[in-house]
Amino acid sequence: MKNILVIGAGLSASSMIRYFINHAEKENWMIKVVDRDGALAVKKCDGSPFAEGIALDALNAAARRPFMEWADIVVSMLPARFHIEIAKDCIQLKKNLVTPSYISEEMQALHQDAIDAGIVIMNEIGVDPGIDHMSAKQILDKVETLGGKMHIFESFTGGLVAPESDNNPWNYKLTWNPRNVVLAGQGGAAKFIQEGQYKYIPYHKLFRRTEIIDIPGYGKFEGYANRDSLKYRDIYSLQDIPTIYRGTFRRKGFSKAWDVFVQLGATDDTYVLEGSKNMTKRDFINAFLPYNPNDSVELKLRHALKIDQDDTIWEKLVWLGIFKSDKVDIQEDVTPAVFLQKIIEEMWQLDAGDKDMIVMWHKFVYDLGEECHEINASMVVIGEDQVHTAMSKTVGLPVAICTKLILNKSINITGVQLPIQSNVYTPILEELATLGIQFKEKEIIPPVLYNTSF
Amino acid sequence: MKNILVIGAGLSASSMIRYFINHAEKENWMIKVVDRDGALAVKKCDGSPFAEGIALDALNAAARRPFMEWADIVVSMLPARFHIEIAKDCIQLKKNLVTPSYISEEMQALHQDAIDAGIVIMNEIGVDPGIDHMSAKQILDKVETLGGKMHIFESFTGGLVAPESDNNPWNYKLTWNPRNVVLAGQGGAAKFIQEGQYKYIPYHKLFRRTEIIDIPGYGKFEGYANRDSLKYRDIYSLQDIPTIYRGTFRRKGFSKAWDVFVQLGATDDTYVLEGSKNMTKRDFINAFLPYNPNDSVELKLRHALKIDQDDTIWEKLVWLGIFKSDKVDIQEDVTPAVFLQKIIEEMWQLDAGDKDMIVMWHKFVYDLGEECHEINASMVVIGEDQVHTAMSKTVGLPVAICTKLILNKSINITGVQLPIQSNVYTPILEELATLGIQFKEKEIIPPVLYNTSF
Repeated sequence: MKNILVIGAGLSASSMIRYFINHAEKENWMIKVVDRDGALAVKKCDGSPFAEGIALDALNAAARRPFMEWADIVVSMLPARFHIEIAKDCIQLKKNLVTPSYISEEMQALHQDAIDAGIVIMNEIGVDPGIDHMSAKQILDKVETLGGKMHIFESFTGGLVAPESDNNPWNYKLTWNPRNVVLAGQGGAAKFIQEGQYKYIPYHKLFRRTEIIDIPGYGKFEGYANRDSLKYRDIYSLQDIPTIYRGTFRRKGFSKAWDVFVQLGATDDTYVLEGSKNMTKRDFINAFLPYNPNDSVELKLRHALKIDQDDTIWEKLVWLGIFKSDKVDIQEDVTPAVFLQKIIEEMWQLDAGDKDMIVMWHKFVYDLGEECHEINASMVVIGEDQVHTAMSKTVGLPVAICTKLILNKSINITGVQLPIQSNVYTPILEELATLGIQFKEKEIIPPVLYNTSF
Repeated sequence: MKNILVIGAGLSASSMIRYFINHAEKENWMIKVVDRDGALAVKKCDGSPFAEGIALDALNAAARRPFMEWADIVVSMLPARFHIEIAKDCIQLKKNLVTPSYISEEMQALHQDAIDAGIVIMNEIGVDPGIDHMSAKQILDKVETLGGKMHIFESFTGGLVAPESDNNPWNYKLTWNPRNVVLAGQGGAAKFIQEGQYKYIPYHKLFRRTEIIDIPGYGKFEGYANRDSLKYRDIYSLQDIPTIYRGTFRRKGFSKAWDVFVQLGATDDTYVLEGSKNMTKRDFINAFLPYNPNDSVELKLRHALKIDQDDTIWEKLVWLGIFKSDKVDIQEDVTPAVFLQKIIEEMWQLDAGDKDMIVMWHKFVYDLGEECHEINASMVVIGEDQVHTAMSKTVGLPVAICTKLILNKSINITGVQLPIQSNVYTPILEELATLGIQFKEKEIIPPVLYNTSF
């Protein structure tokens, strides 16, 4: 009998918990799911005899201690900043730990302690980060084994609405933390390298420097650059690669319309807008436009941002209701970013029955002897419903499978890790494929090199 | 005999020290000028029998103590962040203090202590802040006394090159800290209020929302908004004014060209540009432009920023040498802002014999009974040479005059102050006028109200 402790029963834990329950009898597992919301934890256990949902504040060290002692392995689905305390307990108690979050500097500092304790702390094993690492590294390693030399690596991921639920002019709904959607791209210039030249895009140009990608069967997506593509040279052992670029997918046309808010300054989260408590949506937009008592907000916006009469972004803006004289749901003055979040939350919410979609796409260009090759690999996952969303499946299933592989000792590394080793990613990707999370690889002949793209 | 201690003998202290020396015999003053650069301090004293230049690190509390004890009044011309330690000494030793810098929160907190010690700590008595406060408050108070109600207050100041030395296409040279020129406008949205409506301009739009002002005899200037105009409602007792706007002057056409660097992201000071140590100016510009091996940096820039073939900003950019394949003077990788600073320092330096210019302009619109009035007030000061610059005179002379008035007890307030009281600003403005620092007032008939301006 092996004991699995799941900390956090939120949306991204649903498919993972279902996996644990479905495999519990065969694998001889007992699962405890703890969450501050005890009812939620109970509900996620779905009446299984192998699982128990428990109300617990896992940030209370004394309260969580008996559960951690009981466990053979701990899965932390808490917000990223809380993993570190759990990790320190795991080292002390010699329990393995799995999390889907990025490795923080604090977490990395525990590497030797984890080795000394004989445990693994496996991180970045959700979708992005997670499936992106594993699927990319599998092809990168294959090419390296063949003696190929990688020239271009590009990778994009997007959390979007499924085609069958895609019925608004933005082709976007909120399937992810809405605050992160508003703040996306902020916090510094996007950095990457292209044909050996470092390139930098400031935030206010980010949504106008997109690349269009067609994914067979799913149509066109556009990608904007992530903050720091350069660090992946070290993570993927691609120190000398001339081109590396990671980005985020939206549906084609989204970014140019979203850029209106960036240009206005309406995504700014650094100051409170005076009087915003009493502002209408129209007042909000007007606060960023020149004063003129004789012109409409609409014309001032068109003029300030040079939006043509027939530009398709206009339909998106009108649909979002930004010119309406109604208020948003706030009780106090807020930042522009919070006000904008309230507007999009009203209009971009998922309707009952709506499904989400995760899209990932990689491009590899490499030389093998004298020949240049290109491989594209793409993955599309559609949610089952609003519990087992594409997000929940792609985040939770790699975590679940990895947990199983650690428990049965197929994965037996120690220290602070992420899934970039063949003996980790190979069995996980194989099992994910049986669960519908699968990449399609395609050789592009002839390879597409640079002309005028980004 | 009264003793004046001047701490800091830099550029902005020159005209002040000269004033002290020239008035020393009549006023019965002894002056000590201390600076880390003792030779500089000696030079500024110009052989006067009433003044002594001394090498001293004024940040060393023990070393400065005997000088502070000797003084009847202390003038701190140190960088703003260092005044606070001097102020604490002054409170302890019961010595008056004068500084040209903004009142920091820490300084404001000393108000009651200064009152208890019976001293005045007079701040913001240079040009901006300083002459702007005094000249504005004089007219605001006059209108209030007449029973007028202020509707619009706008105020702009610029440190520029004098017309006779203005010989480059930017109509700009560095007469001020070049780092501040590169970073101007950064750090948050510009905030002001216009006809009762709060208005916000994000940094990346700041240099495209300028207002054009004609100053008789000096031609056209353009102003961009300062960070926070709203706080002046409290400082000037204009709590209910519908429109208040403060800004910075450049020569007409400067801002649109400077905006090229803002749009590129070339003014960013938050990250280090990899490999910038070895970059040419052309490489630097190219780092912010899309990759394309077949297009020139020039065409990529024109396209990215939609610069027409005949746009006059192009001449400015070419003149600045940004497309040249030569390097700038750096020894290590730097931020974009530092790299750009090196470029402008080369090209915008003052030549031998060049003079600077300080321009200030206020607009007041107010109702008097049923009638609406407008007054404009403008001041232009040209530097004598590169020691007694317009900057040195307009910063240093109000400090010097205020020091005299405190010594002879014409000013006898206590506490942490700025020059907004009539008995402070009236004698200072009167004496400044005799020294060539004078406002021209003009009634505008009919008043210019809002149509399409900013």
